[in-house]
Amino acid sequence: MIGHRFMGRAHSNAWRQVARFFETPFEPVLKVVCGRDPQEVERAANELGWEEASVSWRETVARPDIDVVDVCTPGDTHADIAVAAALSGKHVLCEKPLANTVAEAQRMLAAVTATGVTHMVCHNYRRVPAVALAKRLIEEGRLGRLYHFRGVYLQDWIVDPEFPRVWRLEKSKAGSGALGDIASHSIDLARYLVGEIEEVAGHLETFIKERPLPGSEEMAPVDVDDAVLSLLKFEGGAVGTIEATRFALGRKNYNSFEVNGSRGSLAFNLERMNELELYVEEGPESGFRTVQVTDASHPYMKAWWPPGHIIGYEHTFTHTVHDFLLAIDEGRIPSPSFEDGIRNQKVLDAVERAAQSRSWEKV
Amino acid sequence: MIGHRFMGRAHSNAWRQVARFFETPFEPVLKVVCGRDPQEVERAANELGWEEASVSWRETVARPDIDVVDVCTPGDTHADIAVAAALSGKHVLCEKPLANTVAEAQRMLAAVTATGVTHMVCHNYRRVPAVALAKRLIEEGRLGRLYHFRGVYLQDWIVDPEFPRVWRLEKSKAGSGALGDIASHSIDLARYLVGEIEEVAGHLETFIKERPLPGSEEMAPVDVDDAVLSLLKFEGGAVGTIEATRFALGRKNYNSFEVNGSRGSLAFNLERMNELELYVEEGPESGFRTVQVTDASHPYMKAWWPPGHIIGYEHTFTHTVHDFLLAIDEGRIPSPSFEDGIRNQKVLDAVERAAQSRSWEKV
Amino acid sequence: MIGHRFMGRAHSNAWRQVARFFETPFEPVLKVVCGRDPQEVERAANELGWEEASVSWRETVARPDIDVVDVCTPGDTHADIAVAAALSGKHVLCEKPLANTVAEAQRMLAAVTATGVTHMVCHNYRRVPAVALAKRLIEEGRLGRLYHFRGVYLQDWIVDPEFPRVWRLEKSKAGSGALGDIASHSIDLARYLVGEIEEVAGHLETFIKERPLPGSEEMAPVDVDDAVLSLLKFEGGAVGTIEATRFALGRKNYNSFEVNGSRGSLAFNLERMNELELYVEEGPESGFRTVQVTDASHPYMKAWWPPGHIIGYEHTFTHTVHDFLLAIDEGRIPSPSFEDGIRNQKVLDAVERAAQSRSWEKV
Amino acid sequence: MIGHRFMGRAHSNAWRQVARFFETPFEPVLKVVCGRDPQEVERAANELGWEEASVSWRETVARPDIDVVDVCTPGDTHADIAVAAALSGKHVLCEKPLANTVAEAQRMLAAVTATGVTHMVCHNYRRVPAVALAKRLIEEGRLGRLYHFRGVYLQDWIVDPEFPRVWRLEKSKAGSGALGDIASHSIDLARYLVGEIEEVAGHLETFIKERPLPGSEEMAPVDVDDAVLSLLKFEGGAVGTIEATRFALGRKNYNSFEVNGSRGSLAFNLERMNELELYVEEGPESGFRTVQVTDASHPYMKAWWPPGHIIGYEHTFTHTVHDFLLAIDEGRIPSPSFEDGIRNQKVLDAVERAAQSRSWEKV
Repeated sequence: MIGHRFMGRAHSNAWRQVARFFETPFEPVLKVVCGRDPQEVERAANELGWEEASVSWRETVARPDIDVVDVCTPGDTHADIAVAAALSGKHVLCEKPLANTVAEAQRMLAAVTATGVTHMVCHNYRRVPAVALAKRLIEEGRLGRLYHFRGVYLQDWIVDPEFPRVWRLEKSKAGSGALGDIASHSIDLARYLVGEIEEVAGHLETFIKERPLPGSEEMAPVDVDDAVLSLLKFEGGAVGTIEATRFALGRKNYNSFEVNGSRGSLAFNLERMNELELYVEEGPESGFRTVQVTDASHPYMKAWWPPGHIIGYEHTFTHTVHDFLLAIDEGRIPSPSFEDGIRNQKVLDAVERAAQSRSWEKV
Repeated sequence: MIGHRFMGRAHSNAWRQVARFFETPFEPVLKVVCGRDPQEVERAANELGWEEASVSWRETVARPDIDVVDVCTPGDTHADIAVAAALSGKHVLCEKPLANTVAEAQRMLAAVTATGVTHMVCHNYRRVPAVALAKRLIEEGRLGRLYHFRGVYLQDWIVDPEFPRVWRLEKSKAGSGALGDIASHSIDLARYLVGEIEEVAGHLETFIKERPLPGSEEMAPVDVDDAVLSLLKFEGGAVGTIEATRFALGRKNYNSFEVNGSRGSLAFNLERMNELELYVEEGPESGFRTVQVTDASHPYMKAWWPPGHIIGYEHTFTHTVHDFLLAIDEGRIPSPSFEDGIRNQKVLDAVERAAQSRSWEKV
Repeated sequence: MIGHRFMGRAHSNAWRQVARFFETPFEPVLKVVCGRDPQEVERAANELGWEEASVSWRETVARPDIDVVDVCTPGDTHADIAVAAALSGKHVLCEKPLANTVAEAQRMLAAVTATGVTHMVCHNYRRVPAVALAKRLIEEGRLGRLYHFRGVYLQDWIVDPEFPRVWRLEKSKAGSGALGDIASHSIDLARYLVGEIEEVAGHLETFIKERPLPGSEEMAPVDVDDAVLSLLKFEGGAVGTIEATRFALGRKNYNSFEVNGSRGSLAFNLERMNELELYVEEGPESGFRTVQVTDASHPYMKAWWPPGHIIGYEHTFTHTVHDFLLAIDEGRIPSPSFEDGIRNQKVLDAVERAAQSRSWEKV
Repeated sequence: MIGHRFMGRAHSNAWRQVARFFETPFEPVLKVVCGRDPQEVERAANELGWEEASVSWRETVARPDIDVVDVCTPGDTHADIAVAAALSGKHVLCEKPLANTVAEAQRMLAAVTATGVTHMVCHNYRRVPAVALAKRLIEEGRLGRLYHFRGVYLQDWIVDPEFPRVWRLEKSKAGSGALGDIASHSIDLARYLVGEIEEVAGHLETFIKERPLPGSEEMAPVDVDDAVLSLLKFEGGAVGTIEATRFALGRKNYNSFEVNGSRGSLAFNLERMNELELYVEEGPESGFRTVQVTDASHPYMKAWWPPGHIIGYEHTFTHTVHDFLLAIDEGRIPSPSFEDGIRNQKVLDAVERAAQSRSWEKV
């Protein structure tokens, strides 16, 4: 595993836990974790349960005793690591967004395709049981023809103008702000649930134009977006909106969506991720019902606890790793693949172009 | 009062009730109700408590024993009636949207301005106590600098493709579909709470292109929008989205908005119109709180019942009529005036232009 | 109408409005309102729309030009007024609780029965559309065999120990505290929805034992209960709990219940009185659904507004008056009748006895 | 660890995870898991991450290479195992209810006290961060003087009369039904948050008197309660109700409570365990606020994820194990101790006596 901070912790947990709760084709061995600072990566290995620590991802991805490389670094390093891993014949799981540009992402897809390794991009929210259930219901036709997708991803962690200019607020590292970090999740969910996006309008806004550098009083420019607004046309005829912001006070991780179809609707909010709001038209006693997605018949839930006993955020990574292992075993490319990562990247790119051109842009 | 259907019933109730619950400068007398069908208007007069019925609005607005004309007809007739009423020196309350075009609306404003009568457009949702409280909190600075407005107005009454092609689905009568009917409410709330809108992007969609004529099997084209999506830039630097649709199954009258500022947020949904969701940043035990807007200190609520005893939809019209009477008495132009109606119309117009040009348009 | 304060205002509104929204067999004429203070009752007549004001309920109930007497006074005067009205051949609508003691209530029932007039006790919450819908669903068997009733009526208006010792806190006037004032509503709903109560356990608590007299610094004892807790056994085999308190900070008029049966459950809260939470067991995608009880097919709602346009507290009185007028016309005794009032009183009485004896008591 | 089913899985996870997320004084080694069936316990060891499997708890608790014994078996075996473990000098963590009778529980307390080992009963819901936050707020006086506790624990897993007569429905194994299984949790929370219970009234109900034996058509009697209702008086002057049932359709694991005090209220529901509803009286814009208990400053949450990223059911066991390890290290008896277990048992016992005597009973 390359990277050991927020995502590294979540992925490590997934690798440790997956075989404790699921029947998996392989028993994962947590071999090496990589980072830049020798002391920190050593500490991380210890804390997160890895056998070894390394400061060289290049050496690590080349090791013969490793089968899978899991990329949990900032977006600007994804391409180099993933390509090297693929060339060493490792299966690659990569954090989202797949890359900071479409070109990088295409280079990655070329590498994994050429070498035939299994590849997956970690849009873990597809593996929230409620989201997977939403997908199942849509595929079963329970919502009928889809008309609307309404994605709203709200956070509030940088509302304070004194919050420092961390790497996520720097274009050269993060690629973009709310767009690539959180709107990309909404876009992935839109594509997953409704289908391909054809055309977009958009707007990017940076409310606070400069911030102090971390641990300093020196100010530095913020060159990524604080918020992104967009309108969407889907190939299938549905329309949508996606809004993502880090300036919505009180919303901590409010990744929500609503889908309206000719026969029903559904709504989801990550802050209550064990619930799916489902509306099925069946006369005057219809209403949005709160389905507790904790039943053994619901996606992934048989592995966990009895109904009403909820799971948490990190479980979505465990489900991702589980499906990745299954795909490796069965020689399939799981979803979302690097190709999905590219399509996502192309939508992000179209939104940026639309924000620039002040016009609708084709994806 | 001209018109006696849905809006006519709501307005009649307001005129009957206002002096029973509020101290008003005048005791309204429900003199004449007008309509086109003699029998129906007679029945309406009886049912709704009017002294007389008439089939001629022209004669009615000219009567010397009438002081106020209340226009509750479809949008295409507003201008003629309001202008005639103004020229007869009557104070005019007009249903929204003020008119079907900006030009008509300007003609109306010219007439009421020239004759010096009191004028008001009935955007009744400004007078929901929770909305008026939201306004008060924003004006007090409780939300700080405003960043986001998120308006979503969802209904589902025409999802069924067999639902007939009524007048509201006909451009020549209704002017537009969801845009003028319900997005206009969201636009009014956005202007009321956040300020003037500078620029918009937009999309209009008609999912069902033809429908049966009422009581017939003959199909007729639907030439208004089923749904409208838009992005907004406000003069003050905030950004926003407004979406309105009649195709959101399960949402009956879901006129909702959220405002995020640098110090707090608030959210409202008309289906729970006696509640305001308020977030004030005050450390880790903050959270969106459900304020029951039923306290005597809340706008309009002293007139009604004790805390926790809610009011209904029609009360918003009573509040509107109350404020209109006060303004007449005090010789002021109340808000929203016909000028607000025009500004609203101009935003609607910009959204239509943007939907056409596929680009952002100035209001 | 006798009495013109809180209940008087709500009843007056009902008498004024009923024929504006419903087809009624009679057009009510608001003849005389009675009160003790000549000036106040005059003002009330004016404000509430009554033709005359009187300080003598005895004269009023004897007038030949009156058909209906509506009793809205404190509980200690109900019996005398209702009996006199009945003996004058007037139909009697009486606020709840029917009386302060079972003996008084029985005297009232004897009078109305002997004279054959129509009688009804105003448990207006039966006429909340959501509650009437709950009743309909239970009667249709949608919940199956009933197991549980859970009634919780919470208010907070006397939490402040400085709140004065008003008449509602005086046993000689009010009969009891939370018990007769609000638990009586929960008991009525329990009987309405589940059936007769057989046996109870109970506890009455007075947290603040003395309070200042209104407008004075002199303290006076509080000799009624601040809160009542009870357990119930129903004749049909269900069990229940009812709790009512005026000491639940933040709960304004939280009259809520939940019913669980072998096939479904439902839950209601008066603060969101236009909604019914309904659970119907139908596999893993079941969930409590929020039914917006605003459809034309729902009880009473055809008279009001389109779906999603909510009604308020006072409408429940309009519904009550409507059903009372229908019953008069049809020569039926409506529900809840004075007999229901007595049964309710008997449950209140059993709770008081149980609180005293520290044992279960038969009703 | 003795026992490897539902509780065994949850405890195993806690032992595996605690040192991955928390700084602990010891690194737990999962040595031996015990069960009755050799094959099943072998499989469990493998699946849950234990080094060895054993069919003899007696041998296991006597092993010198074991420091801690964790008892996850049905209630009838707790006493023997815990006493033996204590006599071997092991620290003992025991699932709730501590025992099936007060006498057994006292024998257990005597053993752990005599041998000086650390002891704890696993009422894991005290370690839900929202519950621990509730406790902190109450201790800080944020709620003022406490008036009401309202505990409702609802499940629905045996509503179907065909659900088999499993061990949890057999008095000789389980001791009681909803009473010991889930009401015991509510009682623990009541004691934790409000204080000692003085006196109770109660009722036990068995709706379905016999059920088929598992995998058989033969019917067997159900001799435990399906539901329990109780009224409580606390030593400090507060009053309360606790209801627990397995017959509330649609409620999966609805362990909820509300506490009302003179300055504020709070409400919790385990199905949304990452949230605490908090009401603080601060004027007309007060309201119940939904606190997302996911902030680093909230109990236990610093160890997990950023705000808005929720945790799940099993984390409460990890927190329990964490606090147990800390207590061992510091030589303290953690809370809830076996003494708390006994007090809990005494309340259960009083409820049973009250249900029998049909009178209030002292604890």
